[in-house]
Amino acid sequence: MTTTEPRPDSQPSGSAPAPLDWNAAFSPSGQRLGSSAIREILKITQRPEIISFAGGLPAPELFPIEAVRAAANAVLDHYGPAALQYSTTEGHLPLRQWIAAQDGVSPDNVQIMTGSQQGLDLLGKMLIAENDVVLVEAPTYLGALQSFNPYGPRYTEMLTDEGGIDIDALEAQLQALKGAGTPAKLLYCVPNFQNPTGRTLSLERRQRLVELTARHGVIVLEDDPYGSLRFTGEPLPSLYALALRQLGGPENSHVIYSGSFSKVLVPGLRDAWVQAATPMIRKLVQAKQGADLHTPTFNQMIVAELVEEVMPAQIKRVKALYGARAQTMMAAMKAHFPAGVTYTAPQGGMFLWVTLPQEIDTAALLPRAVERLVAFVPGAPFFALGGGHNTMRLSFSSATDEQINAGIAALGATIAEALA
Amino acid sequence: MTTTEPRPDSQPSGSAPAPLDWNAAFSPSGQRLGSSAIREILKITQRPEIISFAGGLPAPELFPIEAVRAAANAVLDHYGPAALQYSTTEGHLPLRQWIAAQDGVSPDNVQIMTGSQQGLDLLGKMLIAENDVVLVEAPTYLGALQSFNPYGPRYTEMLTDEGGIDIDALEAQLQALKGAGTPAKLLYCVPNFQNPTGRTLSLERRQRLVELTARHGVIVLEDDPYGSLRFTGEPLPSLYALALRQLGGPENSHVIYSGSFSKVLVPGLRDAWVQAATPMIRKLVQAKQGADLHTPTFNQMIVAELVEEVMPAQIKRVKALYGARAQTMMAAMKAHFPAGVTYTAPQGGMFLWVTLPQEIDTAALLPRAVERLVAFVPGAPFFALGGGHNTMRLSFSSATDEQINAGIAALGATIAEALA
Repeated sequence: MTTTEPRPDSQPSGSAPAPLDWNAAFSPSGQRLGSSAIREILKITQRPEIISFAGGLPAPELFPIEAVRAAANAVLDHYGPAALQYSTTEGHLPLRQWIAAQDGVSPDNVQIMTGSQQGLDLLGKMLIAENDVVLVEAPTYLGALQSFNPYGPRYTEMLTDEGGIDIDALEAQLQALKGAGTPAKLLYCVPNFQNPTGRTLSLERRQRLVELTARHGVIVLEDDPYGSLRFTGEPLPSLYALALRQLGGPENSHVIYSGSFSKVLVPGLRDAWVQAATPMIRKLVQAKQGADLHTPTFNQMIVAELVEEVMPAQIKRVKALYGARAQTMMAAMKAHFPAGVTYTAPQGGMFLWVTLPQEIDTAALLPRAVERLVAFVPGAPFFALGGGHNTMRLSFSSATDEQINAGIAALGATIAEALA
Repeated sequence: MTTTEPRPDSQPSGSAPAPLDWNAAFSPSGQRLGSSAIREILKITQRPEIISFAGGLPAPELFPIEAVRAAANAVLDHYGPAALQYSTTEGHLPLRQWIAAQDGVSPDNVQIMTGSQQGLDLLGKMLIAENDVVLVEAPTYLGALQSFNPYGPRYTEMLTDEGGIDIDALEAQLQALKGAGTPAKLLYCVPNFQNPTGRTLSLERRQRLVELTARHGVIVLEDDPYGSLRFTGEPLPSLYALALRQLGGPENSHVIYSGSFSKVLVPGLRDAWVQAATPMIRKLVQAKQGADLHTPTFNQMIVAELVEEVMPAQIKRVKALYGARAQTMMAAMKAHFPAGVTYTAPQGGMFLWVTLPQEIDTAALLPRAVERLVAFVPGAPFFALGGGHNTMRLSFSSATDEQINAGIAALGATIAEALA
C-alpha cells in the first residue's frame, strides 16, 4: 500500500506497532552528526602488536599519578562533602582565578568546561546559525568539525602554508565573502603546533589576524590545547593576549580562547576552560547549564590543587619527552622515507604532518602499513571541504624511541613499495 | 549615518573597530538560551541565615566521603595511568555492564553521560527539529526545558492530575495533533516522584502510556533520577522496563531511559547514563563525541567501584532520611498552613508541590518569605506554556527537622499574612 502523504503517521488500531525507524526520527542536527573516520581507524589500530602513530594520546608514563592521588585526598580532607556536591555552572572559583591571573583578566572572563571539546560544541551552538560561514584551516582539527557540523555551518577553507594561515589571502577572502553577501561569522584556528599539521602561526601573522578580524567583525575561536608544550623556539603570545593588548582589554576582545588541562596535566579528568568577554561568558553559562549543569566538582578541585606546583614541573617533563620524540621521528623519516615525501617540523605539541606524492592515497596505504604493524591517520578527514588524499598525520607523543624508529622504518618501506 | 543594508558589515579602513555586539552575534539557538529564574533565586536564598527549601540538593551529610576516597585510591592502584587517560566515548565497560544487567539488556544499549542533563541536551539535539511538537507535563522539570529550548521545540502540555499524566486526555491529544498535521515527536516525563511535583504515575497509566505512544510512534524520554528513592508504597516498573516486556526487548523499545548516580550516590562526580535501542545509542555516541569526547575516566571508574556494595547501603540511608523529612514537612504544613492551601504527598524523591489560593502570586510572596528567613521556588518557571503563578516547589531533602519545622511555620505565617 502506498500513500501520498509526506509523513505517514497512522496505524490501524489494534495491530502491533512497527518498531521505530530511528534514522527517520533524527532531526536535521542529528542527521548532520557523522561517525568519525578516525574513531573507526583507532579501533583497528589498537591491537597491541601495532606501533600506532594514529592516536592523539598524551604519554601515560608521565602522568603524575601520585600527585593526583595526593590532590584527591587533600580535596576530600579540605572540602569534605562540598567536593562531591553540585556546584556552580561557572566553575570552581580558585581555578577560575588562577586561569584569569595568567592573562591578567577577571574570573568573570573564564568559564570552566568539561574538556575543550565542550567549548567547541557550546560555542558552535551559540554562534553558528545554519549556513553561517565558518573559516577553518585546511587541514583543521577534525573534532571541531564534529562539534560544529550539527549546527549546519558553511565551511570556507583558509589558504595555509608552512607558517599557518596566509593573512593576505584571508584579507582578500573576507572582502570577497562580504561582497557576496555572506560575510564570515567565525574563524576557528589552532595557532600553536596545530592539530593535525604541527604548524605554528608567526607573531606578525597573529598581529595581523587579530587586527583584520576585529576590523571585519569576525569572531575568532582560538583553540590552544598545546600552547604550553613548546620544545623549541621562542614562545609567542596567543591571539587572545594580542587582542587584549591591541584592542584594550577583555571586554573589547573578539577572540575567544579555549584552553585545556588535558595535554599539560591529564586528559581523563576532562578539565578545560574558555576565556572571553563577559557577555559571551554569561551566555556560555546558560548554554553549559543546559548541557551538563557544571563540570565535576571533585575534578575541578583536584586540578586547582595541581596547577601551582605540579603542573609547571609536569610541563617541563612533557616538553622534554615530546621534543626528543619529535627529533627521533624526524631523524627516522629522514633516514627511511623515500624522496618526494615531505613533512612538517613542529616546534611543540604532539603531531606532525606528512605529504606524499600525489599518486599515493593514504587511506588505501593504511591497510598495507597495518600489515607491516604500523598505523597512522589518513589526512583527508581533516579537510572540511575534501582533498588531502595524499597526506597523513603522525603523532610522536606516545611512542617510545624504539617504536618510533621501527615504526617509521616500516612506514617508509610501505610508502616505497606503493611508489614502486 | 544610516544604511539601508540589512546587515551592515563594512567599516571605514583605519578607524578603530567597534567592540563586537555579542547579543547580535548569537545564533537562533543561542538566542533561545535563557537564564534560569531558579538560578537567580538560588543566589538570593544562599544566605546562611535563610532556611531554604528552594534548592534541589541531596543531603550532603549522607555523602559516603570515605567510600569515595577508598574508591579513588583503589582506582589509581588498579588502573594506574589508564584512570587518567582518554577513554572510549561509550563509557567504562564494567559500569555499562552493571547498568545493563539491571534491566537484562546489553551494554550496547547503554551510554554513559556527564550528568543526566547531558542526556537531555544531546537527545534534544538529535531528535528535536525546529517546531517539532514535544509533550511535557504541566509542570515539568525546568532543566529539561533549558536543554530543549535551543532546538526550538513547540511544547504541548499534557493534562495531569494527582496520579500524573491523564492517559485518556493524552490519547485525545495525540489524535488531535495528528489531525492537525503536527504529530507529537517526543514525550518527556518523570514518572517517579516528579520534579517539581513529587507525583508518581500509576502502573496502569504506565502500561497504557507505553502502548499508546508505541502505537502513535511517539518517542518517550523517561527521566528517572529519583526512581530508587521510594520511601513509601510499592516500587513500580519503569516505562523502559514495561516497553521491554510489552514490545519484545530493547531493540523494539521507543522509550529512552535516562538514569543518574547523582541522587543515589553523589552529584559532584557527574555520572549518569542513557539506555535505548542500539541505533539510538550509536547516534548518541556520535553526539557525545562532539560534545565532550567522553565522561571523565576517573569518575566512571570510581562509580563502578561503588555500585555493588556502597550504593545499596547508601540508597537505604537516603530513603530513610528523606522519608522522615517528607513526613516532618507534611506534618508541619498540616499544622501551619492556612486553609485553602493544598500540597502533594510524595512517595519518594526530594520534592513536594504546594498550590495556594488563586489570588496569591508566589513570585511576589518570595521576598516576603525571605524577610521571614525562609525560601522556596515559585512554580511558574516549571510550566512550559505559562501559568502556575499560585504554586511553589519545596525540597525536603537537605533541611533538618528543626529547620523544616521553623521554615514551614515561617512560610505558613507569610501565606496567612498574604491571604489576610
